Amino acid sequence: MPEPAASVRIEIRVELKPGVLDAEAESIEKSLGLLGIDHVRRVTTARIYDLEFGDVASAEAERLAREAVDRLLANPVIHRVTLHPAIP
Amino acid sequence: MPEPAASVRIEIRVELKPGVLDAEAESIEKSLGLLGIDHVRRVTTARIYDLEFGDVASAEAERLAREAVDRLLANPVIHRVTLHPAIP
Repeated sequence: MPEPAASVRIEIRVELKPGVLDAEAESIEKSLGLLGIDHVRRVTTARIYDLEFGDVASAEAERLAREAVDRLLANPVIHRVTLHPAIP
Repeated sequence: MPEPAASVRIEIRVELKPGVLDAEAESIEKSLGLLGIDHVRRVTTARIYDLEFGDVASAEAERLAREAVDRLLANPVIHRVTLHPAIP
């Protein structure tokens, strides 16, 4: 029986750049105040995309993940992106 | 001059439970295929909420973060939540 092909997972974290209005975070800050959940100084949000690749080496998976970021997942004008390998 | 009060950051990761339809992930899988970005076996998404607390001990910050999750940030029917301290 052939060994199952190894998979590579890349976790992509997309955040807003500092200075870009994070409307969701502002709304959460306001809501936490209304709920009486105090001591919150700041809220920031981020989006995680976890891409699992099959039948590729990790370097190629990372290249594909960067292509996905550039062409689909992030806007370089407003987003800061970090990639790192995730545990399969 | 008084020392600035320490801050505690808690990172909250909200994911869909296995079996709950992740429409955004499905749409991304489809789009990656259309863009010719191959070898993608699976996409999952998650939302990060980074809460910075001031003037509280880390145990109290964690308690407040869990309260924020329960009352505002997640729905226990569909979401799986993990909390961990973030570097300030």
